[in-house]
This record gives sequence, C-alpha cells and structure tokens, in this order.
Amino acid sequence: MNIAELDTPALLIDLDIMDRNLGKMADYARAHGLRLRPHTKTHKIPALAERQLALGAAGLTVAKVGEAEVMTKIDPPELLVAYPVIGKQKLDRLMTIAANTRVTVALDSLTAATELSAAAQASGRTIGVLVEIDAGLGRVGVQAGPDLLALVQRVASLPGLFFEGVAFYPGHIKVLNEAADVALAAVGTLLDGVVRNLEAAGFPVKIVSGGSTPTLYLSHQVARLNEIRPGTYIFNDRNTVLCGATTYNDCAASILATVVSTAVKGQMIIDGGSKTFSSDRPMGLEEVSFGRLLDAPEAVFGKMNEEHGFVDIRKVSKLFQVGDRVRVLPNHVCVAMNLHEQVYGYRGETVEHVWRVEGRGKLQ
Amino acid sequence: MNIAELDTPALLIDLDIMDRNLGKMADYARAHGLRLRPHTKTHKIPALAERQLALGAAGLTVAKVGEAEVMTKIDPPELLVAYPVIGKQKLDRLMTIAANTRVTVALDSLTAATELSAAAQASGRTIGVLVEIDAGLGRVGVQAGPDLLALVQRVASLPGLFFEGVAFYPGHIKVLNEAADVALAAVGTLLDGVVRNLEAAGFPVKIVSGGSTPTLYLSHQVARLNEIRPGTYIFNDRNTVLCGATTYNDCAASILATVVSTAVKGQMIIDGGSKTFSSDRPMGLEEVSFGRLLDAPEAVFGKMNEEHGFVDIRKVSKLFQVGDRVRVLPNHVCVAMNLHEQVYGYRGETVEHVWRVEGRGKLQ
Repeated sequence: MNIAELDTPALLIDLDIMDRNLGKMADYARAHGLRLRPHTKTHKIPALAERQLALGAAGLTVAKVGEAEVMTKIDPPELLVAYPVIGKQKLDRLMTIAANTRVTVALDSLTAATELSAAAQASGRTIGVLVEIDAGLGRVGVQAGPDLLALVQRVASLPGLFFEGVAFYPGHIKVLNEAADVALAAVGTLLDGVVRNLEAAGFPVKIVSGGSTPTLYLSHQVARLNEIRPGTYIFNDRNTVLCGATTYNDCAASILATVVSTAVKGQMIIDGGSKTFSSDRPMGLEEVSFGRLLDAPEAVFGKMNEEHGFVDIRKVSKLFQVGDRVRVLPNHVCVAMNLHEQVYGYRGETVEHVWRVEGRGKLQ
Repeated sequence: MNIAELDTPALLIDLDIMDRNLGKMADYARAHGLRLRPHTKTHKIPALAERQLALGAAGLTVAKVGEAEVMTKIDPPELLVAYPVIGKQKLDRLMTIAANTRVTVALDSLTAATELSAAAQASGRTIGVLVEIDAGLGRVGVQAGPDLLALVQRVASLPGLFFEGVAFYPGHIKVLNEAADVALAAVGTLLDGVVRNLEAAGFPVKIVSGGSTPTLYLSHQVARLNEIRPGTYIFNDRNTVLCGATTYNDCAASILATVVSTAVKGQMIIDGGSKTFSSDRPMGLEEVSFGRLLDAPEAVFGKMNEEHGFVDIRKVSKLFQVGDRVRVLPNHVCVAMNLHEQVYGYRGETVEHVWRVEGRGKLQ
C-alpha cells in the first residue's frame, strides 16, 4: 500500500527514523552500562515493544495495569508499573499478570505498599518495589530523608514485596536552561545521599531508575543512576525539539491531514483537531499552536476545534486547495497516539506496517 | 452494580440529569417549531442517539463518515454530515450509507460539491446539500453574497445532489457578552438576506440549520433559523457553565478518579490526566485548570501529565488520603468521552447502563 492510498487523518511513522532512534538509545544505554526499561506509553504497540526488547531492553515500563496487560502478549522478561497501583480491581489484575511475569511497582505511600503487600500475599506472588522519590518536580515521590527511610523500611518488612531500589523523574530540568548541568548534578548528589543512607541503614539499593527525555543522553553523568526508562525517544515530537532534546530530523511520527476548506481568506481548515492531535500545547512557547506543518513550517496551526484544525497561511507562499494533503508534526506524540485506532509505518512512500494501537485508552 | 464497585478513572453519567436535559431540549424545539437534529459527536453512543430520536429529533448530525457508520445501526431517518466530505475513500463509504439512509452533507467549496456529485452519480444516489455560510466565526463557510450564490447555483445544477438549504455555526457569539443579543440579531439579519436573495434567484431554502450551545435557547429569536443541531446539551460540562449557557446542576457527566499520591504537601495526585480528561482548557478563564472537583470546588486542578492530575488542595478544608475517590466535572465533555472505551450511566448509586463509546476515535 502507498501512503497516497491512506485516508486521512492518519498517523504515519517513518520507519527509518524510528529504527535510528531505537538504535541510538540502545547503543547509548549499552555504552554506559545503563539498564534500559523503555516506557511503552508512547507507542502502546506490543510489536514495537518487542523491537525494544530485541535491541537489549531489560524489560518494559507502563503507567497503568491495562497497559501492562496489553504488553503481556509479547511475554516481556519484566514489567515495571511506574505508577502507584491503588484499589482492589487493579491489584487483582496485577496479580494475574505477576503469575507469569516479573512485576515491579513504583510507589510513594504506605497505603500503596500495604495494599500491594496484601494482594501479593493473598495470591502467593512476590512483587518488586521501587520507592519513588521527588527529585524536584513535585509530582509524586517522597522526600529524601526520614520519610524515604520510613517507607523503605516498611516496604522491606512487608510480606510479598521486595525492595529493589528507588525511582525518580526529573521532569523539572529543562536542557535549554543554562543551569541544566547544575540541576542534574544536584540530582546526582541527592541520589548519592539517598543510596548511601539507605545502604547504611541496611537496605541495598539495586536499582536507581530515572531520567526524562530532555536530559536522557546526559543520564550517564548522574551519580548512581543505573536505569533509564525513556518513552518518547522512539518517535520524538515537536516538544522534544522545542525543549532542545532532539532535532526535527529525529521526529518519526507525523499526522497526514487533508485540507477541507479554504473559504476564509488567509486560512485553511484541515480535517483534524483536538480529537486527532490532542490539545497539548507547545512546550516553552508563548505561542498557542498545535503542530508544525512539515511542508510549510511558516504556517501557524494556531487554533482547533474537535475536528477542525485552523491553519493561518498568511505567511505561506505555497498555495493550498481543498483536497491537498499536509503532514503535521504533533506537539506531543504520546497523547496523539492515544487518539488513533491504528497507525501506519512507512519507508519512502510504501506503507510496510499497519499497527493497531492496542494500549490506547487503557485508563485503568 | 454500584458506583463504588467501579474501577477508576471512569466517566459517569447521571441519568436523571441527562433525561432532564434531553427533555428540555425536545420541549424547546417542539414549542418553537424548530427541527432538531442533535449532533452525536458529544455522546458517540447509538443507544443515546436512539433516545434523542424517540424524543422527536428529525435525524442525527455527525462530523465524520465513521461516526455516521456507527449511527446507521439504529437506522436513523436521516443523517447530516456537518463536515465537508473530501476524498474517494470517505465518499465511497458515504454512498454505502446512503443506500439505506437519507444523507445530507454540509459543504463550502466547489471541490467538495463536485466530488460529492461524482460519487453520487456513480452510485446512483441522491445526496442533500446544505451550503455552509460563515456567520462570523471565520472557520468554514462561504460569505453571504456572490460567493454563496455561485456555490448554490452549482450545487443545484450538479447531478446527484439536491440543494436543501444553508448551515452555519455562530460559535463566535458569547452569551456572557452584553452584545450577544445584538450579535444574534445580526445573524438573523444575515440569514434573512441570504434566504431572500437565494429565493429571488430561484433557489428555495428549505432548511436554515444552525445554533451553538451558548445561544441555543435563543434560537427561536433568530430570523429564518428553522433547524438546530446541538450536541453538548445532553451532558453539558464545565465550559457550558463557564460560558453562561447552563448551571452546574445541568451537568450530567463527571469523571470518577482516585487519589494516588499525597506525598507533596498541599497537593494530591489523581489517577487521570490528559488521557482521561483531555488538555482542553476552561473557556474564558485566565486560570489554567482542567476540571472542577465536585466534592471540593475550591481545589484547583491546575496541571496534568498524561496519567497524573495535579490538584492543589491548599484552600481545601477536607482531608484527602491515598485511595479516596473524587468526582471531577471535565472542561469539555465531547473530547473526554472520546478518551473512554466505555461510560457508566447511573441513578443514585446504582449503575444502570454500561455503554461502549462506539463512535470514539472515528477520525475518518
């Protein structure tokens, strides 16, 4: 099948770029002795997780139990649920997964640990635990110090759990900020203190899992960090470019759209809006815009309704007519993937794969 | 099943409020002799479209051919695709639908009309056309005047099409704005001129289809308007309240979420973010926030990642713990529905219906 035969809107994946992105990350992790546990929330496709494992990933990361269930079909060596699993329904499902797969959960509360232990004990499973620490983002995670020690002590003593180490997400560090090096070094100092204190208290810290997309290739500079769990790197997106982590040449995913109206002068309407791209805004820009038109970067995709993308073409020399097709780089590819039932992997003009986004909408 | 047995996040629908919303709209349309062709993009559920038809709707409105296909299972008397249908794949599918259902398309270009005519002719179908006019929003629609006349002339002459009337969407009118009455009157004047001119030129205008949620119950005041196609009214949402169209008591849909972390002081994290609520922002507010906590309206749901909702609870007197459940009114219910595989209709604490959102993700 040729790209020209696809109906729109359609999410396309340039397989050459994707392969390069996958290879680069695998090489980097190997070169620096970092465990790689890719976050599958970006692609949500078991076949792509399989490629990540074939390239040396130690296991897979997911955010929700439903995403973990989707990934069990490729029988990964281990699954990290990087999200507190709260409530009986999810815990029951997690224990079913753990019957055949090594499962680790990241958590930051006594409640989460106690519930997980009870579920593990009731089903005769053993679940690994990474205790989440707040490295500065202020999202989840306990503070390093007495809170952390108390939680680790409890996790280590609860039946059915084993303490594997700590996890963090340094999403507060912006690489375009001149102080990024300083901020990263501070995270390293924090982690070093955490590991020393926990080990002095008798709790070996096997895994220190962290990293964010913007700081990914600086991970080897962070003291004690020995595992990374990147997601977006497989495709990249406008925001990874805007935050300084990648270039446009590294972006594998784009959305093919059709011009459906040119009735208003200086504007065209494309057949995708918030239900195709998501309403995620560009990172670090004052401008409100929802993607970059690859064929006309000077166009401003500045407004959207659910099915209408408003593109300001006043500064564009190219002429667009109803029926023309455009390619748009989305701001945030993870949420865009979640909106598509299937996506198309291509090389040149040939569609080589039609992948169902099996993990989309797995909210629970 | 009881609500307490549902896992989270889950989208709940209060059936009493929904029934009241449906009844109020049906009564209004009947009282003022307005044709009602509800837009199903809000609920995306055939069973709910069936209720709208049972209450007197003349037909259904959809945005995409894929949504039309979903709705054919309840055999509606007519389907309006309120969106230009461009490209062979969609036109072929539309003609299949038109074999058994009366189909109308709203369009604003010669290209769309010509392609539609060719497809209709090739398949032996006849398709109704509403010519879209721009009533001031500047999205789609030709300008009233020579452009409109030229397009109507062409539609009326093309084989396989019949000109039914005009459509518009006055999304630019804000009811909280003091000039809303004036703006609406201006739309009425515009429509009156359009109808007079087209009929003088020999083109009877059977249908004048329009209206937006904020101005919905003022529709009878708009000269010439004889059909409305509201969508959001079935559930309403935070934005319909913020824009002055409804009250919180009219909002039927909410999202049940669980507190998964309270590790950061003054904040709690709930188990839904942009993949559960969408990143749509509140209408007309400077504040960035993603919903209203029904149990704690003074909380600020001010930030989200894909799976994390950050709720600032510094001004909240109620204490929240990990595992607690909250209900959140989403900013924009149409895009939220699109993110859920299924939703739950309840009365009191009892879940009466589990509906699959059959039209979700129908992008094409």
